[in-house]
Amino acid sequence: MNEQQIRRLLDGVKSESVSVDEAIDSLRDLPFEDLGFAMVDHHRALRQGFPEVIYCAGKTVDQIITIADRIVTRGADLLATRASQEIYNEVAAQLPDAEYHEAARAIVLQKDHTIRGRGRILVVSAGTSDIPVAEEAAITATVMGNEVDKIFDVGVAGIHRLLAHREMLTSASILIVVAGMEGALASVVGGMVARPVIAVPTSVGYGASFGGVAALLGMLTSCASGVTVVNIDNGFGAGYAASLMNRADTP
Amino acid sequence: MNEQQIRRLLDGVKSESVSVDEAIDSLRDLPFEDLGFAMVDHHRALRQGFPEVIYCAGKTVDQIITIADRIVTRGADLLATRASQEIYNEVAAQLPDAEYHEAARAIVLQKDHTIRGRGRILVVSAGTSDIPVAEEAAITATVMGNEVDKIFDVGVAGIHRLLAHREMLTSASILIVVAGMEGALASVVGGMVARPVIAVPTSVGYGASFGGVAALLGMLTSCASGVTVVNIDNGFGAGYAASLMNRADTP
Amino acid sequence: MNEQQIRRLLDGVKSESVSVDEAIDSLRDLPFEDLGFAMVDHHRALRQGFPEVIYCAGKTVDQIITIADRIVTRGADLLATRASQEIYNEVAAQLPDAEYHEAARAIVLQKDHTIRGRGRILVVSAGTSDIPVAEEAAITATVMGNEVDKIFDVGVAGIHRLLAHREMLTSASILIVVAGMEGALASVVGGMVARPVIAVPTSVGYGASFGGVAALLGMLTSCASGVTVVNIDNGFGAGYAASLMNRADTP
Amino acid sequence: MNEQQIRRLLDGVKSESVSVDEAIDSLRDLPFEDLGFAMVDHHRALRQGFPEVIYCAGKTVDQIITIADRIVTRGADLLATRASQEIYNEVAAQLPDAEYHEAARAIVLQKDHTIRGRGRILVVSAGTSDIPVAEEAAITATVMGNEVDKIFDVGVAGIHRLLAHREMLTSASILIVVAGMEGALASVVGGMVARPVIAVPTSVGYGASFGGVAALLGMLTSCASGVTVVNIDNGFGAGYAASLMNRADTP
Amino acid sequence: MNEQQIRRLLDGVKSESVSVDEAIDSLRDLPFEDLGFAMVDHHRALRQGFPEVIYCAGKTVDQIITIADRIVTRGADLLATRASQEIYNEVAAQLPDAEYHEAARAIVLQKDHTIRGRGRILVVSAGTSDIPVAEEAAITATVMGNEVDKIFDVGVAGIHRLLAHREMLTSASILIVVAGMEGALASVVGGMVARPVIAVPTSVGYGASFGGVAALLGMLTSCASGVTVVNIDNGFGAGYAASLMNRADTP
Amino acid sequence: MNEQQIRRLLDGVKSESVSVDEAIDSLRDLPFEDLGFAMVDHHRALRQGFPEVIYCAGKTVDQIITIADRIVTRGADLLATRASQEIYNEVAAQLPDAEYHEAARAIVLQKDHTIRGRGRILVVSAGTSDIPVAEEAAITATVMGNEVDKIFDVGVAGIHRLLAHREMLTSASILIVVAGMEGALASVVGGMVARPVIAVPTSVGYGASFGGVAALLGMLTSCASGVTVVNIDNGFGAGYAASLMNRADTP
Amino acid sequence: MNEQQIRRLLDGVKSESVSVDEAIDSLRDLPFEDLGFAMVDHHRALRQGFPEVIYCAGKTVDQIITIADRIVTRGADLLATRASQEIYNEVAAQLPDAEYHEAARAIVLQKDHTIRGRGRILVVSAGTSDIPVAEEAAITATVMGNEVDKIFDVGVAGIHRLLAHREMLTSASILIVVAGMEGALASVVGGMVARPVIAVPTSVGYGASFGGVAALLGMLTSCASGVTVVNIDNGFGAGYAASLMNRADTP
Amino acid sequence: MNEQQIRRLLDGVKSESVSVDEAIDSLRDLPFEDLGFAMVDHHRALRQGFPEVIYCAGKTVDQIITIADRIVTRGADLLATRASQEIYNEVAAQLPDAEYHEAARAIVLQKDHTIRGRGRILVVSAGTSDIPVAEEAAITATVMGNEVDKIFDVGVAGIHRLLAHREMLTSASILIVVAGMEGALASVVGGMVARPVIAVPTSVGYGASFGGVAALLGMLTSCASGVTVVNIDNGFGAGYAASLMNRADTP
Repeated sequence: MNEQQIRRLLDGVKSESVSVDEAIDSLRDLPFEDLGFAMVDHHRALRQGFPEVIYCAGKTVDQIITIADRIVTRGADLLATRASQEIYNEVAAQLPDAEYHEAARAIVLQKDHTIRGRGRILVVSAGTSDIPVAEEAAITATVMGNEVDKIFDVGVAGIHRLLAHREMLTSASILIVVAGMEGALASVVGGMVARPVIAVPTSVGYGASFGGVAALLGMLTSCASGVTVVNIDNGFGAGYAASLMNRADTP
Repeated sequence: MNEQQIRRLLDGVKSESVSVDEAIDSLRDLPFEDLGFAMVDHHRALRQGFPEVIYCAGKTVDQIITIADRIVTRGADLLATRASQEIYNEVAAQLPDAEYHEAARAIVLQKDHTIRGRGRILVVSAGTSDIPVAEEAAITATVMGNEVDKIFDVGVAGIHRLLAHREMLTSASILIVVAGMEGALASVVGGMVARPVIAVPTSVGYGASFGGVAALLGMLTSCASGVTVVNIDNGFGAGYAASLMNRADTP
Repeated sequence: MNEQQIRRLLDGVKSESVSVDEAIDSLRDLPFEDLGFAMVDHHRALRQGFPEVIYCAGKTVDQIITIADRIVTRGADLLATRASQEIYNEVAAQLPDAEYHEAARAIVLQKDHTIRGRGRILVVSAGTSDIPVAEEAAITATVMGNEVDKIFDVGVAGIHRLLAHREMLTSASILIVVAGMEGALASVVGGMVARPVIAVPTSVGYGASFGGVAALLGMLTSCASGVTVVNIDNGFGAGYAASLMNRADTP
Repeated sequence: MNEQQIRRLLDGVKSESVSVDEAIDSLRDLPFEDLGFAMVDHHRALRQGFPEVIYCAGKTVDQIITIADRIVTRGADLLATRASQEIYNEVAAQLPDAEYHEAARAIVLQKDHTIRGRGRILVVSAGTSDIPVAEEAAITATVMGNEVDKIFDVGVAGIHRLLAHREMLTSASILIVVAGMEGALASVVGGMVARPVIAVPTSVGYGASFGGVAALLGMLTSCASGVTVVNIDNGFGAGYAASLMNRADTP
Repeated sequence: MNEQQIRRLLDGVKSESVSVDEAIDSLRDLPFEDLGFAMVDHHRALRQGFPEVIYCAGKTVDQIITIADRIVTRGADLLATRASQEIYNEVAAQLPDAEYHEAARAIVLQKDHTIRGRGRILVVSAGTSDIPVAEEAAITATVMGNEVDKIFDVGVAGIHRLLAHREMLTSASILIVVAGMEGALASVVGGMVARPVIAVPTSVGYGASFGGVAALLGMLTSCASGVTVVNIDNGFGAGYAASLMNRADTP
Repeated sequence: MNEQQIRRLLDGVKSESVSVDEAIDSLRDLPFEDLGFAMVDHHRALRQGFPEVIYCAGKTVDQIITIADRIVTRGADLLATRASQEIYNEVAAQLPDAEYHEAARAIVLQKDHTIRGRGRILVVSAGTSDIPVAEEAAITATVMGNEVDKIFDVGVAGIHRLLAHREMLTSASILIVVAGMEGALASVVGGMVARPVIAVPTSVGYGASFGGVAALLGMLTSCASGVTVVNIDNGFGAGYAASLMNRADTP
Repeated sequence: MNEQQIRRLLDGVKSESVSVDEAIDSLRDLPFEDLGFAMVDHHRALRQGFPEVIYCAGKTVDQIITIADRIVTRGADLLATRASQEIYNEVAAQLPDAEYHEAARAIVLQKDHTIRGRGRILVVSAGTSDIPVAEEAAITATVMGNEVDKIFDVGVAGIHRLLAHREMLTSASILIVVAGMEGALASVVGGMVARPVIAVPTSVGYGASFGGVAALLGMLTSCASGVTVVNIDNGFGAGYAASLMNRADTP
Repeated sequence: MNEQQIRRLLDGVKSESVSVDEAIDSLRDLPFEDLGFAMVDHHRALRQGFPEVIYCAGKTVDQIITIADRIVTRGADLLATRASQEIYNEVAAQLPDAEYHEAARAIVLQKDHTIRGRGRILVVSAGTSDIPVAEEAAITATVMGNEVDKIFDVGVAGIHRLLAHREMLTSASILIVVAGMEGALASVVGGMVARPVIAVPTSVGYGASFGGVAALLGMLTSCASGVTVVNIDNGFGAGYAASLMNRADTP
């Protein structure tokens, strides 16, 4: 449609029913949605292999099903985060191929299993309560075409457990460190590797952990260089950013 | 003096110049300062070997010299914290035996060098900017009769440096961990030893360290058991508490 | 097992089937878990008489039972904190010897009743709402081999009630002060004794108590020396730290 | 002037040059400043014996002198708070009778020394750094016609010193408690008396005292009933409020 | 009892079965509870006409009934705050004379209706949601022997409504101003009267009211002198403090 | 009524039964409620076309119905915000003409549909979770006599979608921008137009959005001039302020 | 230049050296800077009569002079805020027509004195320390083509002073209320008028005013509808927003 | 050296002067620094091409020169951040090859100019006050072997300026976005590219920007996926993390 408008204008120039000056005036005010498709194209190209994502929190089941259906219809892979078992049940009634990753609270419908990352992404977490956020990061990176490893049994108060996994830590391409409480794991891991570390504070803890603020501040002020931070409990964001960093087909 | 007042009263009862009822009335309102001496005695007994301490911040040089003079006159050891070189110079003019510990910003006049601690106190810090607080903790513990060791070259972002001192860490009786930024050192050390760890957050850092708040929260929410925390930059408090914990002559 | 790997390597060196250079290369990358056992041994030795602890908040009943079972099977004493009556009921079905301390919300299965502390630990609290945290501290210290006293009826707004217990306060080896609201009890107690005081802020209170922040700040800025602080509501941490401080068999 | 306007209007009604309806219309929009004088009178009456107060912080010396001059000319007593020695020197050049209270950082020119309070006001403070705020409270109450006592050598970490002044505490009409750090003094004093206690947090302290926030929160959440609080460092406000509470000539 | 112990000691001195030195030693350690009775007596005397108060939040119904029963048995008046209808029903089954003030969420059993205040206490509030806190202040002051007036229909956004009550405002002895949101009512009222104003911030509001923090800060920084502040939602504390200020029988 | 009092007074002056001096005295103390009606009149005049508004949160259904009934009886239009479906059902039973705007959670009974705004008000929001607040702003502006447009599908992370609506943005008279998370939409829109922009932060988001604080701070520190801000989630306030700005009949 | 590129393309279409499809492809990726000039034009048009503004804080004198020179050269009016006397002196050496508004800390070089506002803008402030911010708002509105009134002697603690200016308040088109401390003035003014009120919190105050936070929160939670808020001390922003609201030539 | 110790031990085993059991005992306690070299080696390998960095803030000039000298002596490249002109002058006296990057406040002595990044790093910032932080990020990335572009003239309030650089934005490998105030630039850029975006909040701004907190929160809660955040003003950290992400020689 927009393309048709431009085509009509250019046909007018070609047939000289529209002067060049008139055409310039028209183009000067060219509605942005007319240019928009280029960007959309561009975006789509860049996102190849990326699933479309639904953040379920604060959406009704009907809204989720509608969006999920539209995504799958269009042939894209689907990732729905913060999804309860109930939401999955209703989505699965509509989309029987959708799988539920309980630990990650995520619904996945993935057809394209091409590996797009150049190295492995490693998700490290300490406490058992951090696992949902860590799993959300892992499933996100997986669905975005990465090979993902997980170390979920380490914490700085038992540093030898972490050291025992030194090899896996140093061979990862990108590391995601998920930790609540004081969030010190990010600094320790950041000091052990020379690869990008994405730190995810979690809202795990009580009292002075202030719903993740203690971990967040600890990670932001980490004495280890190369550590960057995402929002509290934002496993998806960490998995997404790690995937961008790990892309093999970009510079 | 107070004792004399009571003695006089009791002599009156004994000689029957004071009736029992009158004596009860007097004792009922017994000024607290009269009982106070017991507490004072008790305090003095408990404090044996403890220096009297002047917190110099917010005091005039005159006030500091007056108090210091009174302490030394009474035969007690002297510790003055947060003291600048200028303050020391003026104090030293009056009390030539006083020494200045520049790194700790402390003035010390110690005559009693008896060791009262049952084990060694170890002060651990990471960054060079944490050193003044760490030294304040160390000098406090020293003047209070403890043998003190220091490890000042370790940080969690280079965990191998810390691990290299494992023996010294595990053989200490009490550990003081001084750290700014994210304060993760307390958790790591706390997880390596089975002895009391006193964590001192420092105001070192910028941005989201918020003048020591990040380190404070990190230490309070430490996942290592056995860690207790003092106020930001409170090296003196840590050294004092460690000395109490290390006393050989108390249960 | 790990020891066997090293033994095999050294046997190879001895029998010259492995060159010294090859052995150095192997040792250079010696997996940390191989060194880990020393640390584990060391830890186990230090922890003798210490129960294994389960923090129940945020764990499923199944997880709790599984961990509890493993702990008891291996012969260790068990302490489970933040446990509801419901959790206890299910644990007790599996482990009939487990006892429930309702006031402390703790499950205990203790076989080793050796006293390991050199003095008595005193838990002091003010309001009735602070009692759960105070009891958690007390049961922790008890299970870790200490004799524990409790004073639960004192508050700074009725200072004479506190003074009435002066003797018990001054004869304790380690004091744990549990208080919500403004947390002033820690300063007052800290000024009355010359022993370590561990202050535990509680989330009791409303309005400007901000879930324990007022008490926490009050305790951190206490004008009494020798006071150290743990996280809000962290009765377990206080009991654990007090036990470390009170150990008779360490320097 | 305003009165004249109304008088003119009423004269018009009386002489029937102004109809009642017109007068009602005029009065309906009666400028508020015309009613204002009643309020001013009322205020003046209520304020009898109260000095006019200049808060010097953020004012130029010229502004201060101009206002001071106007106050004194009109016969009122003068109180200028947060005044440096330099400000005083310049004010004294103009108003030679003005006195400087250095400890309170206050300039006072008081001619009316009538006692208007029914009881004595007692100002209690702990640390030497709290003294300027305490003295500001004391001088304010004094200039407003009260007899004021001061206890400046007490702190909760040495509770016996406070108890020694029990009699003075319980005989005061109104108590002002000035404290920095954790501000616990207000709770302890509040629990010892059955009179109004005004708590003044001070910005004294470092680290987690956060410029008086710790003391402020401690005082607001005080477990002692009858304690009310003013702004951090607001000695003047406390002295003013205490004077209002102590007024003999009001119900 | 304690008096008997002292009497026995003094009798021993009188009969010379106890030496003066022995008596001094005994007195030196005179248990504080022995002096305590004076304080208790003193307290009881001061509290005459004051009800005993139970803060119900965080207490079980059984605890409340037990305490209430003990208070009433001893002949004292009873005030129980933060009490639900359910709590009242159970208390009333035990104490049929107890009345429930629904708006104040308070249980009252008052036999002594003597008026002890010298003037009237006025409770002013703005929004309908502030009423429970305002009523709690009013009922507290009433039960403590004061005549109490209430103005509940005023707010600073309609200043004329407040001005309409000018007379009642200026004739009150003590004013309690209850306000949520921005808490500006305290400043406006404080500027209209020359009597003590106790400001009570409420947790009413949303967003940037932060559960009463906006009102609290507004009241603490009020530009009106003579305003003091209590904790957020602390209607009881305001009523209690106002009663202390209004007592006719104290200086 | 009040008018009658003044009339009676003026009649007295006219008939000389009241002297001018007596009348001045009476007027000096003229109760404020007597002047109040002017203000009420004035207010009513200004508010012509403005509905009366009920903020339902924290009110009982009975209170809401009573107030609604009184408003409608008096002939005014009605707007009730933060109203659930349940509340609407009960209101509709009483006021069958009332309509429910589910998305805005608002009850509206509007008879006067006069357009009073000089231009169109545009409500822009980004996420689907911001819609309730945006709709509340829109319905408020509508009921207050404005033509309102809505763009609900734009967000700064897809800037081309926003640019596509450039024309609608630049032709609006007043813009309301509703956004949670980082609230950046206000700055971007503010930079694209030269008309007043009212920014409404929403509590949408998790972690470091802190219930709308991130958006609030972002909007307050917006680098775009001409942006003003209302409270978190305050859609009504934004709609009301926009209506005031858009009034055609005022200067 | 960009126009030339498009012209060249269109000439190619016209001369058929470029096919319509090729042209569409080129236009699809049309660089945004090519469209940019439209927006710039548009912006310039909208800003007619608006001065260019330099925020001097954090800029060097050289930078300020360079920018000021460029602005004046291009014929625009100049407003430089947060400018010290020193900065003015150096600017004036270069631009002798520039005037310094000391109270507003602003440099102004205004040639276009056309009045563009439809009504008057009124700036209201309370304390003398708020005046710089109030004056910055006033000068901004003035230079942007508005008639501006000022009331600087009012505060809510003396409400009658505010009421005395009722007429000026109600006749203003837009009101700017500047206040520090508790910021209550915005609510009171907002309740007295039916026009847009822009509230500017100032960093004036001490203690719990927290550098303007108390005033900011008070203004955001104002119970008066129609109040919007700008950043702390942002007098310029308020003057700018008020000017946008007051524009006569826009809808 | 350490290697020599192990070699000696193994030689002993080989020559049978050391038994296998003795060797195992020695290795069990193998000092960590002996293993450390592996890590050091590994680190050195990974860091090839990375400069050694000195954070100058809080270090004396002597300390800086000593460390700088040691770094250069050992042949490494040098980067010193937060360095004043004075520091540079003294460093340059010692190390004449060192260059000063004034805008970045950085001292650089770089000999190895190998490009190690696979793509270009783009640093984007908005205000002129953000430039020092942006330049610090740029110089860090440059010295670490990357090609770096800079766009310093864009801000979200003038979105067309940003759009004009669309091509440069989308062709970058890694983007660093530096912004103060509300930090919205990160979200807008993050929405325009499909590459990793590192957001750096700056402490630029006043009032509610709270020293960078507003920007920090805005960036953490960014609605654009793929954005990670570093500490306030941490340009170095952003440049370092970007370099890790851009390394060509790692997976």
